[in-house]
Amino acid sequence: MIDFRPIFLVLGLLLSTLGVGMLLPALVDAASGNPDWRVFLASAAVSLFIGIALILTNRFGSSEINVRQAFLLTTLSWVVTAAFGALPFMFSDLGLTYTDAFFESMSGVTTTGSTVIVGLDDAPPGILLWRSLLQWMGGIGIIVMAVAVLPMLQVGGMQLFRMESADSSEKILPRAAQFAGAIGFLYLGLTIICAAALWIAGMSPFEGLAHAMTTIATGGFSTSDQSIGHFDNAAIDYILVLFMIVGSLPFVLYLHVLRGHHRPLWHDSQVHWFLIIALGSVIGIALWRWNTGDEAFSDAFRYTSFNVVSIMTGTGYSTADYNQWGGIAIPAFFFLMFVGGCAGSTSCGVKIFRLQVLYAAINVQMHHLLQPHGVFIPRYNKKPIPDPVISSVMSFFFLFAVCYAGLALGLGALGLDFITATSGAATVIANVGPALGDVIGPAGTFADLPSSAKWLLSFGMLLGRLELFTVLVLFSPSFWRG
Amino acid sequence: MIDFRPIFLVLGLLLSTLGVGMLLPALVDAASGNPDWRVFLASAAVSLFIGIALILTNRFGSSEINVRQAFLLTTLSWVVTAAFGALPFMFSDLGLTYTDAFFESMSGVTTTGSTVIVGLDDAPPGILLWRSLLQWMGGIGIIVMAVAVLPMLQVGGMQLFRMESADSSEKILPRAAQFAGAIGFLYLGLTIICAAALWIAGMSPFEGLAHAMTTIATGGFSTSDQSIGHFDNAAIDYILVLFMIVGSLPFVLYLHVLRGHHRPLWHDSQVHWFLIIALGSVIGIALWRWNTGDEAFSDAFRYTSFNVVSIMTGTGYSTADYNQWGGIAIPAFFFLMFVGGCAGSTSCGVKIFRLQVLYAAINVQMHHLLQPHGVFIPRYNKKPIPDPVISSVMSFFFLFAVCYAGLALGLGALGLDFITATSGAATVIANVGPALGDVIGPAGTFADLPSSAKWLLSFGMLLGRLELFTVLVLFSPSFWRG
Repeated sequence: MIDFRPIFLVLGLLLSTLGVGMLLPALVDAASGNPDWRVFLASAAVSLFIGIALILTNRFGSSEINVRQAFLLTTLSWVVTAAFGALPFMFSDLGLTYTDAFFESMSGVTTTGSTVIVGLDDAPPGILLWRSLLQWMGGIGIIVMAVAVLPMLQVGGMQLFRMESADSSEKILPRAAQFAGAIGFLYLGLTIICAAALWIAGMSPFEGLAHAMTTIATGGFSTSDQSIGHFDNAAIDYILVLFMIVGSLPFVLYLHVLRGHHRPLWHDSQVHWFLIIALGSVIGIALWRWNTGDEAFSDAFRYTSFNVVSIMTGTGYSTADYNQWGGIAIPAFFFLMFVGGCAGSTSCGVKIFRLQVLYAAINVQMHHLLQPHGVFIPRYNKKPIPDPVISSVMSFFFLFAVCYAGLALGLGALGLDFITATSGAATVIANVGPALGDVIGPAGTFADLPSSAKWLLSFGMLLGRLELFTVLVLFSPSFWRG
Repeated sequence: MIDFRPIFLVLGLLLSTLGVGMLLPALVDAASGNPDWRVFLASAAVSLFIGIALILTNRFGSSEINVRQAFLLTTLSWVVTAAFGALPFMFSDLGLTYTDAFFESMSGVTTTGSTVIVGLDDAPPGILLWRSLLQWMGGIGIIVMAVAVLPMLQVGGMQLFRMESADSSEKILPRAAQFAGAIGFLYLGLTIICAAALWIAGMSPFEGLAHAMTTIATGGFSTSDQSIGHFDNAAIDYILVLFMIVGSLPFVLYLHVLRGHHRPLWHDSQVHWFLIIALGSVIGIALWRWNTGDEAFSDAFRYTSFNVVSIMTGTGYSTADYNQWGGIAIPAFFFLMFVGGCAGSTSCGVKIFRLQVLYAAINVQMHHLLQPHGVFIPRYNKKPIPDPVISSVMSFFFLFAVCYAGLALGLGALGLDFITATSGAATVIANVGPALGDVIGPAGTFADLPSSAKWLLSFGMLLGRLELFTVLVLFSPSFWRG
């Protein structure tokens, strides 16, 4: 039997935090004279009431949790946050159904950025702030998970990032709390710097803050239906490119920088690979666009770099309908969705370190084919990769392919056309945001999809965000057999 | 330095066989009064001349080859056969360019079945027979490779099928020759049975033979532009379904059946998985079509079973434009392309045994997550899978994904639209034949693609047919460093 008390305790803490968070949009709406402040206040009351009740009834449980509890807690954290985070969307002026509200909320906390809301430019500031806040909280949440929880659970090769000092799963909760404190200040600081830069470049303070929160979280919710294209400002574009990249590198390395150690950041092979793939894709596609179109190179580079970085990091802003770029651009955007950023960042996808591990394994295979009796050792960051990490990463990759195919087939069965189904599955499992094609591409919206598709897509976001295994293990009979 | 003499000797034998093979369409064209018999005779003369010259000049080399030579020989066998097999296409009435002729020939010997020829119904019998012969020879060729060569080269987990009696790569050539003899009679016998059945069901003897050869080879070249839809005959459809399945099971197991041992065939887990995936897909899509359309169930079942089995086994016949089926059908056909048949058959794709190994590995991962200190062993056919086989299979899967993405990106760069590029890459790397969409779907043709795309697609066919590593290893600098 699983002891639910420590799980409920943490969920209670999360819900209380969420409730307090809802007071911010309530204040903003009240200040701007929008009646929606009552909606946020009521949602805050519900969340706080249930949150505090959970804390009070479960406060005497153990603070140590086992592996099973950790899996359940991780998945439930995201599901419960999304479920309660949806309340303001449902009761506000927007009048969304609960399906739409849950989709929007899940898209927020998983930092995906797909939206069902049309008319953002005229939406009340409270709702806009709430969307940004959900992504911002989802972003810090996933960093804490990726650094303090997943490596101990040995999910998908994340044990590669296990710290020497803590290798017992019983200490998950204390460690997570300790790490969250340290990283929280950093995260807040980066957000403020980004917001200030955006304000100087021409956004209003509110727009700057809203976008800074969704940029550092590589989330991609915007305050305009046209996303960043609305601002049509090169400085804003390049500031966002910089901070989308900042959001996709391992945050632990920034802590080293703060302590004066720059070396770990600049010598990390994951960072190198990320930058090489991003730069290579940007230059390749920019040259192709320059060559085939009639744009100046500076424009081709600006639009390409923004949209490529946005898709690859899984942010999901857009400044152009790259769907119309044709040629190599569309398959390139499709495959870049899967790449993602670094482990321990706010971005999703297969992730750079897994591509490195898989590349090292293939390299060893090639050498082994030519010298069957030779001994070759795959390496990551110059250190040998332990065998269990390799098989864990490889299993992740295959599972990713299977889940992706399952989502795409499911979306097809629900009536979506080929490009919508295949790119929609990609965009949710990699937490990107927009997909390809006319329906849910950068110029489209998820609003018109059938409800069943929205639930499936929401599940896909959760699956991708929690590295598949964390969610799927709950569906294995042996999980519940104990 | 690589000793090319044994390689050239085998290539000489292959070219001579090809030359002799060209005499068959020459006879058929001569008998039907078509002047193309001269083209076949001339092509035969060229092939025989070069083939015999290679044999004579290299006959004193060693009959033992090392690993490097085996890789080179395998790849060159397919390239040289395709290059010379293209001659009749180029010089015949069809007047194809060498690009088109090479594409058609490579599509033949790799048993892919994509075609650039329009007007098959009026084409001379010699050309039709030659297309079938290329696929038929490609089919037996790949079985011999898969059983006698690839397991020893340890390509992509094929070492799982290594026979106990022979584990030294030096004996590759004698073993291949010995095995080819045994399997050749079986292959011929199955072809004759299939041809007779098709003739009884209503095809002309020529059509029956032509289709029997491309069915057992899971190749898919037809004698009509409308493929099997031309005959509109349920008996023919079901006979072909049966023999496409026969072509996709491990041929070694048939040898056991001939010796009176039925058990290995019926108890092979690869065979079970293949049948379950095929049957599951057919029933699922047939029910969906029956439910959403206005067909009788028997019709829905007939068209679905034929086209699903054709795509999954990589045969590539069609009796309907499934491109118009919409909904789940199109993504289902897309993912089924990748599945393929069993190892040691004429079919291609990722192959069933690899999916089994990957599934077993994921299953072990799941158990390991819940019990980090437990010991779990992945199994195939009830036997533990050695670790090197697992990593070999997993590397293959990742490499397959990378090569697929590379091909799709390349096709996009050459100007193909999204569905043509992504499904075209899938259909060549899995040796299927038709792709999806209007251009190269079941109702389209590859004729209108740019030449550069045809060369890239031809390379993709070769890559897929020879299990990726066999070809790619030649591009590694350490291969040539010695």
